[in-house]
Amino acid sequence: MARKKKYTRDSSVTMTELVLPNDTNTLNNLMGGRLMHWMDIVSAIAAQKHSNRIVVTASVDNVSFGKSIQLGNVVTLTATVTRAFNSSMEVHIKVTAEDIPSGKKFNSNEAFFTFVAVDQSGRPIDVPELVPETDEEKELYAGALRRRQLRLVLAKRMKPQEANELRSIFELDN
Amino acid sequence: MARKKKYTRDSSVTMTELVLPNDTNTLNNLMGGRLMHWMDIVSAIAAQKHSNRIVVTASVDNVSFGKSIQLGNVVTLTATVTRAFNSSMEVHIKVTAEDIPSGKKFNSNEAFFTFVAVDQSGRPIDVPELVPETDEEKELYAGALRRRQLRLVLAKRMKPQEANELRSIFELDN
Amino acid sequence: MARKKKYTRDSSVTMTELVLPNDTNTLNNLMGGRLMHWMDIVSAIAAQKHSNRIVVTASVDNVSFGKSIQLGNVVTLTATVTRAFNSSMEVHIKVTAEDIPSGKKFNSNEAFFTFVAVDQSGRPIDVPELVPETDEEKELYAGALRRRQLRLVLAKRMKPQEANELRSIFELDN
Amino acid sequence: MARKKKYTRDSSVTMTELVLPNDTNTLNNLMGGRLMHWMDIVSAIAAQKHSNRIVVTASVDNVSFGKSIQLGNVVTLTATVTRAFNSSMEVHIKVTAEDIPSGKKFNSNEAFFTFVAVDQSGRPIDVPELVPETDEEKELYAGALRRRQLRLVLAKRMKPQEANELRSIFELDN
Amino acid sequence: MARKKKYTRDSSVTMTELVLPNDTNTLNNLMGGRLMHWMDIVSAIAAQKHSNRIVVTASVDNVSFGKSIQLGNVVTLTATVTRAFNSSMEVHIKVTAEDIPSGKKFNSNEAFFTFVAVDQSGRPIDVPELVPETDEEKELYAGALRRRQLRLVLAKRMKPQEANELRSIFELDN
Amino acid sequence: MARKKKYTRDSSVTMTELVLPNDTNTLNNLMGGRLMHWMDIVSAIAAQKHSNRIVVTASVDNVSFGKSIQLGNVVTLTATVTRAFNSSMEVHIKVTAEDIPSGKKFNSNEAFFTFVAVDQSGRPIDVPELVPETDEEKELYAGALRRRQLRLVLAKRMKPQEANELRSIFELDN
Repeated sequence: MARKKKYTRDSSVTMTELVLPNDTNTLNNLMGGRLMHWMDIVSAIAAQKHSNRIVVTASVDNVSFGKSIQLGNVVTLTATVTRAFNSSMEVHIKVTAEDIPSGKKFNSNEAFFTFVAVDQSGRPIDVPELVPETDEEKELYAGALRRRQLRLVLAKRMKPQEANELRSIFELDN
Repeated sequence: MARKKKYTRDSSVTMTELVLPNDTNTLNNLMGGRLMHWMDIVSAIAAQKHSNRIVVTASVDNVSFGKSIQLGNVVTLTATVTRAFNSSMEVHIKVTAEDIPSGKKFNSNEAFFTFVAVDQSGRPIDVPELVPETDEEKELYAGALRRRQLRLVLAKRMKPQEANELRSIFELDN
Repeated sequence: MARKKKYTRDSSVTMTELVLPNDTNTLNNLMGGRLMHWMDIVSAIAAQKHSNRIVVTASVDNVSFGKSIQLGNVVTLTATVTRAFNSSMEVHIKVTAEDIPSGKKFNSNEAFFTFVAVDQSGRPIDVPELVPETDEEKELYAGALRRRQLRLVLAKRMKPQEANELRSIFELDN
Repeated sequence: MARKKKYTRDSSVTMTELVLPNDTNTLNNLMGGRLMHWMDIVSAIAAQKHSNRIVVTASVDNVSFGKSIQLGNVVTLTATVTRAFNSSMEVHIKVTAEDIPSGKKFNSNEAFFTFVAVDQSGRPIDVPELVPETDEEKELYAGALRRRQLRLVLAKRMKPQEANELRSIFELDN
Repeated sequence: MARKKKYTRDSSVTMTELVLPNDTNTLNNLMGGRLMHWMDIVSAIAAQKHSNRIVVTASVDNVSFGKSIQLGNVVTLTATVTRAFNSSMEVHIKVTAEDIPSGKKFNSNEAFFTFVAVDQSGRPIDVPELVPETDEEKELYAGALRRRQLRLVLAKRMKPQEANELRSIFELDN
Repeated sequence: MARKKKYTRDSSVTMTELVLPNDTNTLNNLMGGRLMHWMDIVSAIAAQKHSNRIVVTASVDNVSFGKSIQLGNVVTLTATVTRAFNSSMEVHIKVTAEDIPSGKKFNSNEAFFTFVAVDQSGRPIDVPELVPETDEEKELYAGALRRRQLRLVLAKRMKPQEANELRSIFELDN
């Protein structure tokens, strides 16, 4: 039976959060862990929408934090499913922050979270295929394979020599 | 002037959390984002203790989530500084979970978070050197260089060809 | 000096929330007060974006709650500024809820919140004009005057006889 | 069978809250949504006490916010059931705030919330009659009919022409 | 200068809380620590009202917990200042819980908390005298001296032999 | 059948908390109630580990609060079971606080909490015996009997004349 297909736009999610006192450290900066908590929720919702299933976080790729986000800033997180494997989905999250009184808006960071769809007993279950449409979606779709190999190598579940896709990240053939 | 030296044991931190309803999804599993929030707090405290400074999260390395942690479980997080660079510190976090009535305890996952020590105006400031003592500490200390190169390559701030330390992860010379 | 103009789309905000255990009553339904808390935050952000100012809630119009929203549902709130007066702005909020495993999505409710832009000492300050573009925006813009009169009458700050715009709501001339 | 009767004093509830950092905006003012969250809880408890049932919020009448409430203020909310219909109850909430070090106490605002009593399957169920005793209770009881018509008209579930009670609010016969 | 006098009724506070999921353990019972958190807030407000000062918790007397309070129960806490010393005040808290659908209401427990009034730099400052009026207030007022001696003895700040008032608790002269 | 034996070290728990804005009063001091909430959680976990059961808080002994703990401080709580009775366990909690930038660390306070182990229906159930090993553990073990009598006397469940162990606290024979 043919596997169901869905598009990125079918499951994109935007979440907006206001940075409150308890989200900040003593310099009034948003704590990284609080931001990752929000990233996990917005990307889990995207993965749920794609799969129409409950999902569990399987992994988080390397995240780096740049310019600090301040108390009172408005944080916008956009999550899009980039590719579906059997029961897992990679989700891309982009975070922007805005200091409204000054009108300053900046890209904070981006990340890739991976989720597994599960049934009511918690067992992995197949998800629809993701069909990329725009150029950006196609690029994210293509890169998903490389990132997946890197995850497997880092988790010691794949030997580096077998990670053919990954070689291109490190431009190993040059 | 010689840089101050500190040991891993000077800044190790253990945090214990009880999984409450609001930390879980509809399957009663601890959400990944909540766990990362805790990981960030415990490792930030370790980095603060090492540097006697306020610290900000600079990056989080690839984290993978294994067996699910349930409502009511006790989660123990141990954070140790593995290596200090100029103003940044790498912290290793180990997470174990325990279902107390059944007495089942398991390793949930581990991760590396990196922090930058800052002064009151938020500018990076130098931190003491970390001197590893035990074999495990020495191994983590040695690996910190490779992980740092991987972070820089993934953040596109270092060319893969220059990441000499990193090559060994991918066994590229074999 | 001509007053600055802004469009509805310049300040629209979408917020997505996952209904967690502490948001619900013993029937696992989202509590009305929690929903209003979210409505206030999303509409305050829209008003902040329109005015580039800190804003305070001035009033909330009659809100009715229909079909109950369940634990685990995804709630999407969209806030748009409908009209700006001197220092106050009316914001329209639409709430939809989705039970993702069943794929059921429904309109939960809508409301109008009014905010006043204030300066750092908390004094009201003028805001840009709102220019409606689409038909829906124009209708909301027109209706804002009637709703404002109703607010003033209910707050006993306007006599019903003077509320000319309001008469049309009650079809009083028929 | 005669319907059970209860008095206002049988179900009145007083709630006291301390304004904490996370309840405030960057001007240290209590956010309107947080106050409505408290209003909903205190009035839901009053409606539960009147009906000895689980209740769900059906509607909130126009609420206006006056003088701002500050961080550290003590907020007192008093909820009284004003009238019971078949399965619904109207609750009146009065909010006062107090800045304790200065000894300043002021009326913040008041509102009417309506609740529906439900059984364990969430179906509406009849509630006891409310018998007003004092003059203030009788006035609130009488006004409940007008406010109910206004709710129905605003929700487009009653035609304005049929809202006979409502006409008096707008003094339409003068 | 004569010290200001205030009555118990000038500062009595009633707080009502609904037991939410995050307040409970895996048996759906309210956790003792959460209840003590509420007790501390309600009694701190009473002490603030008596002294018109910021107050800090100085001690908590032995608290015992009886019948368990369940998820969804309504908890009512009443705090009254029983006696003022120089800068400290003893507050009595009574806790009742109610399961509304069943109409069952029971006394949960009671406790004595002591607070010190402080100025803006955190230094202790004198508070008004408490004048008991009713028989119950007079009994609590009289007992306050004994309880104070017990606190001092337990904190090793008074020798048991000097605690004359305390002897009566242990009926030592019989 | 011989009762199972366990050691203090089998169930000791360390919890580390960062003082966040919502944990503090308007002087930026940690509120006593929040600290007791943490004390209850850490000691409940120790009692759970000793008994491998769900536990409920039975009582809290007199707690006194000394030097105030500030916003941003790191609070370390260590809980150890001191003695087990039939179904109840006494747990000792030590609290230290640290202001990391200044490197100042101080003992904040200590307390004794008592828990009862219960089965799934909430009925008390026997727990393993606690065998003290070190001198400090033996002293805490011995003192547990005296503290238990004090609890019973204060709860009016034991006559002071029968509290033989207690007499030594008050040096009543001297």
